[in-house]
Amino acid sequence: MVVIAATPDSPYVAVIFTSVRTTEDDAGYAEMADRMEALAATQPGYLGIEAARDPGARVGVTVSYWATEEDGRAWKQVAEHLGAQEIGRERWYASYRVRVASVGREYGWDAGRD
Amino acid sequence: MVVIAATPDSPYVAVIFTSVRTTEDDAGYAEMADRMEALAATQPGYLGIEAARDPGARVGVTVSYWATEEDGRAWKQVAEHLGAQEIGRERWYASYRVRVASVGREYGWDAGRD
Repeated sequence: MVVIAATPDSPYVAVIFTSVRTTEDDAGYAEMADRMEALAATQPGYLGIEAARDPGARVGVTVSYWATEEDGRAWKQVAEHLGAQEIGRERWYASYRVRVASVGREYGWDAGRD
Repeated sequence: MVVIAATPDSPYVAVIFTSVRTTEDDAGYAEMADRMEALAATQPGYLGIEAARDPGARVGVTVSYWATEEDGRAWKQVAEHLGAQEIGRERWYASYRVRVASVGREYGWDAGRD
């Protein structure tokens, strides 16, 4: 699995999804999150996704990257729709926040390319 | 601990730090990451921080929020400096990427405020 998204030169758009779960039970949640990531990859303008979940702290931060603001906003709406209806807020989340942001600068480092 | 940052109305700036570690050994790393988060909170323009680390996958995503682009870039430079020198790339990271982005839209939900 690619962990750091191979995004193009900026500008592009980041959708930051931070969530706190109601339970540490990760069984169904992990599957749902994987499905969401797979679904993101099928959406217009998708550039990549980065996600970390801390089961003990019940915190997840997922950042997906999109070619345009419109693509990012469209995904925000799809994600909210699924988060609220298919899966159910009560079932998974104590709270979450979605932010749409325009990436203007970046810097990376990779041991394999040093 | 506050998990989802109580950021003000947009616009503000997000610095997205995604990293892959070389080892699953979380002992010293967690302390270093905690120190970095505490240091961020002392910097000009700091609005909050959200972080999730998956020890098994060796992936971490940390998003810090800043009042202005200048504040965000300043923190990016501090974080890179510490990441590269004090702690050592070889010691912790296989790769990482830092992105500075301007937040324009957001949406949140909290079970406690429903």
